[in-house]
Amino acid sequence: MTIRQSRRREWLPILSWARTYRGETFVSDALAALIVTIMLIPQSLAYAMLAGLPPEVGLYASILPLVAYAVFGTSRTLAVGPVAVVSLLTAAAVGQVAEQGTAEYLSAAVLLAVLSGGILLLMGLFRLGFLANFLSHPVISGFITASGLIIAASQLKHIFGIDAHGENLFLLVSSLVRHIGDLNVPTLIIGACATLFLFWVRKGLAPLLTAIGLPAKPASMIAKAGPVLAIAVTVAVTSLLRLDQQGVAIVGEVDGSLPPLSIPSFDLGLIEALFVPALLISIIGFVESISVAQTLAAKRRQRIDPDQELIALGASNLAAGFSSGFPVTGGFARSAVNFDAGAETPAAGAFTAIGIAIAALFLTPLLTYLPKATLAATIIVAVLSLVNFRSVVETVRYSKSDGLAMIATILVTLGFGVEAGVVTGVALSLLLFLLKTSRPHMAVVGLVPGTEHFRNIDRHQVLTGDKVITLRVDESLYFANARGLEDTVYDLVAANPKAEHFVLMCPAVNTIDASALESLEAINARLKDAGVTFHLSEVKGPVMDRLKRSHFLDDLTGKVFLSQYDALRALDPEIISQSAVDALCDRVEQQREKEVTTHVR
Amino acid sequence: MTIRQSRRREWLPILSWARTYRGETFVSDALAALIVTIMLIPQSLAYAMLAGLPPEVGLYASILPLVAYAVFGTSRTLAVGPVAVVSLLTAAAVGQVAEQGTAEYLSAAVLLAVLSGGILLLMGLFRLGFLANFLSHPVISGFITASGLIIAASQLKHIFGIDAHGENLFLLVSSLVRHIGDLNVPTLIIGACATLFLFWVRKGLAPLLTAIGLPAKPASMIAKAGPVLAIAVTVAVTSLLRLDQQGVAIVGEVDGSLPPLSIPSFDLGLIEALFVPALLISIIGFVESISVAQTLAAKRRQRIDPDQELIALGASNLAAGFSSGFPVTGGFARSAVNFDAGAETPAAGAFTAIGIAIAALFLTPLLTYLPKATLAATIIVAVLSLVNFRSVVETVRYSKSDGLAMIATILVTLGFGVEAGVVTGVALSLLLFLLKTSRPHMAVVGLVPGTEHFRNIDRHQVLTGDKVITLRVDESLYFANARGLEDTVYDLVAANPKAEHFVLMCPAVNTIDASALESLEAINARLKDAGVTFHLSEVKGPVMDRLKRSHFLDDLTGKVFLSQYDALRALDPEIISQSAVDALCDRVEQQREKEVTTHVR
Repeated sequence: MTIRQSRRREWLPILSWARTYRGETFVSDALAALIVTIMLIPQSLAYAMLAGLPPEVGLYASILPLVAYAVFGTSRTLAVGPVAVVSLLTAAAVGQVAEQGTAEYLSAAVLLAVLSGGILLLMGLFRLGFLANFLSHPVISGFITASGLIIAASQLKHIFGIDAHGENLFLLVSSLVRHIGDLNVPTLIIGACATLFLFWVRKGLAPLLTAIGLPAKPASMIAKAGPVLAIAVTVAVTSLLRLDQQGVAIVGEVDGSLPPLSIPSFDLGLIEALFVPALLISIIGFVESISVAQTLAAKRRQRIDPDQELIALGASNLAAGFSSGFPVTGGFARSAVNFDAGAETPAAGAFTAIGIAIAALFLTPLLTYLPKATLAATIIVAVLSLVNFRSVVETVRYSKSDGLAMIATILVTLGFGVEAGVVTGVALSLLLFLLKTSRPHMAVVGLVPGTEHFRNIDRHQVLTGDKVITLRVDESLYFANARGLEDTVYDLVAANPKAEHFVLMCPAVNTIDASALESLEAINARLKDAGVTFHLSEVKGPVMDRLKRSHFLDDLTGKVFLSQYDALRALDPEIISQSAVDALCDRVEQQREKEVTTHVR
Repeated sequence: MTIRQSRRREWLPILSWARTYRGETFVSDALAALIVTIMLIPQSLAYAMLAGLPPEVGLYASILPLVAYAVFGTSRTLAVGPVAVVSLLTAAAVGQVAEQGTAEYLSAAVLLAVLSGGILLLMGLFRLGFLANFLSHPVISGFITASGLIIAASQLKHIFGIDAHGENLFLLVSSLVRHIGDLNVPTLIIGACATLFLFWVRKGLAPLLTAIGLPAKPASMIAKAGPVLAIAVTVAVTSLLRLDQQGVAIVGEVDGSLPPLSIPSFDLGLIEALFVPALLISIIGFVESISVAQTLAAKRRQRIDPDQELIALGASNLAAGFSSGFPVTGGFARSAVNFDAGAETPAAGAFTAIGIAIAALFLTPLLTYLPKATLAATIIVAVLSLVNFRSVVETVRYSKSDGLAMIATILVTLGFGVEAGVVTGVALSLLLFLLKTSRPHMAVVGLVPGTEHFRNIDRHQVLTGDKVITLRVDESLYFANARGLEDTVYDLVAANPKAEHFVLMCPAVNTIDASALESLEAINARLKDAGVTFHLSEVKGPVMDRLKRSHFLDDLTGKVFLSQYDALRALDPEIISQSAVDALCDRVEQQREKEVTTHVR
């Protein structure tokens, strides 16, 4: 294989797997595609509704984007398409620039997909995937929990058949409460039954099926078809009883066609207004997608290339944008089903696209009488599984600062919306990390008698003398903690007037930046003025290499010791001999006690 | 001493030193005050001019603020008053809201001092002094170099006797070049002579004085009076030759009085406009002041309390604001002179204030004919000593990322002004730090034959087997690098299909945050799916304590080994025996070579 071929394969993963594609693989992929298609039809309709878009847009967003991912993606099993959180973000972003139901709203959603695709593509080309790393786990988890609550609350109006709006959870709930008098009973019956049925399907159907003798895997596959069943039943009931005339909101006539080509309007003002939301959608969509892809790939010891994934998701979103769709990403539930159903190559995604295309062409007439309450029920059941309060408790227990970032993300998302929530979470977690590293753990240490180990004098029985102060720093030294180190050193020297030597023990110092170097030079100079010699011990190789490039080692009044024990042996040998004596005395003492005990017996 | 008394002393350090104040201390302090007064008179006039304010305002800012610092400050020798960089910041901030020379300009400067005092005081009360740590050394150093260049360039117009303005260095220089035709010859002669004289005084006078037999200390003290001499001579020449009628710009009549009480106008719009500059002035002033104070205190093994220093500087600036002054801070040159001249307590500062008050009352008539060119010369000579390009070279050589932050700070400060420069520098240095920690050094390690040490397999001849992969991480694990760790682990496992065990070696991992914990859990689960057992080794005590608070250790498929050697002994004992055999073979080989060599001889 030439280098050019290998590069081409890196950019087009399809070239790697397509040439070895065989009949058996086709059968596995096609079966998985069938199951995912059945799952995706209701989801795509529901998430389009969540995004405030007509249902066919959901179908459009589930055709070409899947093909694009099949060509560019590195995950064998990721199922791309509309997902809940990204649809919520889309609704929030587009709702700020256009009125729901208008042509402007639709074209803004299309532009959002194109922008998000462009951002993802550029991030991939410039290998900026690491930017997603600044979204910490507690922030993502808190954001998804809060989004799940908002999404569920926003769908309640469809279950009750009332009109309710609100920019945040509290406004939404109070609006629901205000309008509760207008509730439509047939809608509520359909919505409540569908919700209960879907909850039961999720928890109870698979066990029931296995109980009657079905193997676990097909049982769980069949359970995934629950939403389709709910749709079929509620469509039948609504159309037979003409419940739409009783006030049950239905989807109405759905435009049954293949996705029309769309040329997004490149209105600069609109691009400016949508850029930050598009960035947010890109990063959050990427984080969600890459976690799913990696989880599944690791199970089969396959590899995911994060930067190529950015390119693939970028291509998918561009495909969505140019085919009248809205932003998409890799979804958790569908991908897991795809994996479990035996998908072996991204071709499964392309076959799913064919399935959805057939649905778009031929099944849409059946959707006219689909109650919006049924779609709301599928959304509510799906997103409530994302809400995870136990994780908040566990995070707080594990780390106060992570817990704080998580709770802040949840509260700000609920109270001020999704964008404010993510921005607050990221800013707060960065700030808390900087604060943590800016106040590193430092300990004055002494020799553990009879050993070559050094421990914190506040926690252990150790030997120290007046002559030598040893401070161990448990953090890389950089600008935010350099002055703190200086303060600590000066305080220690001021508090120990008899000290002649100061040793900074650096076993966990991974870097020393220019500010910290300056501080070390200042410490060296000031201790010199105070008549104290400054030494280092246990400096790591790379840190030492860098120090050699500065004047510091020439100016250092003391030495750099390989080990702290060497340092003490050179600077205060009395402690070393005392340590030996102590150890000896201890042994004699133990021996004597043993003798005494024996005697008493 | 009761607790209340001790607290009162903490807040009012004057209570500690004043009760033991003696005659000898008074003599030392008074002498130091005399020398600092001689140095401060020209400086206060010059820095007032730099800030765009009438000269008497410089004197006002050198009276009450010094008294306030004497009451609240913890440094025994810090000399507070107008300084170059803060005066430049004042000019930049006030110039944006008012026209120089107007009453509004003066009252905005007064408000700026009050705001800055309030911010410093609050920072002190809430113990927020650590915020200053986020200004890295290269950023401060770059900022001061750039400020020095801007200040020097801005004073050239006074030397040439022309009119020139510009918001950044390039505009300033081009404006100077455009107006150079208007230059006033007598002004240029005075300015050039004063500049050359002051440069010579700085470099040449003290050596000359010691050469003629004066001890080094008094010689260097006398050299500090150079600016006063330059002022006296140029005032005499200008008034005798009536050079002001030849176009030499003079200070003019100075309002000779004690500082009038001023009530700052609390105009909300103005406060809003000045708040960010005031914050910047507070932080930069604090950083400058605390570095000086610590340098001097360490020489005498004294302590500086950074939070109390914030309170003291806050009180000084409030005093400046309520007595018609402008923002002040601890200056480097004056404090060093104060220290060298033998100041022992903050009383020296109070005595300096008396000296300046006398000057304000009785010496101002003498200043009428003071050429502005002389003041400009003292400023230029003072600030050019702050410009340090060697430090840029050294920083770049030591660390690319620190060098980048420094150069960016310099260029942005020169090109876009002081505020933009500092903000860019801080943002860039934080970003670069996060990027560095987000891409930690990781190495696959193997056993050094015949030892218990493990080293990077890419750098050293080490023993490894197919069964165990060991990865050492040289950084704390947190959200920004957690996913990178996952990628590395999965790539390694995918590349080593025979691996049965994966050991993560953590000797330099100081913390594991909730995101990293989640990643470790994901790694554990995914490796389990792939049939690989996951182990940790050399986990630090505090990190282990925290891990115990989570589920991770219960779920871990492998073990936590105290040392990597223990891990290898348990997981792949063959390597250990091979290591012993290798070591033995080496010894035999050496022995044989020795024999061969002996034989050949």
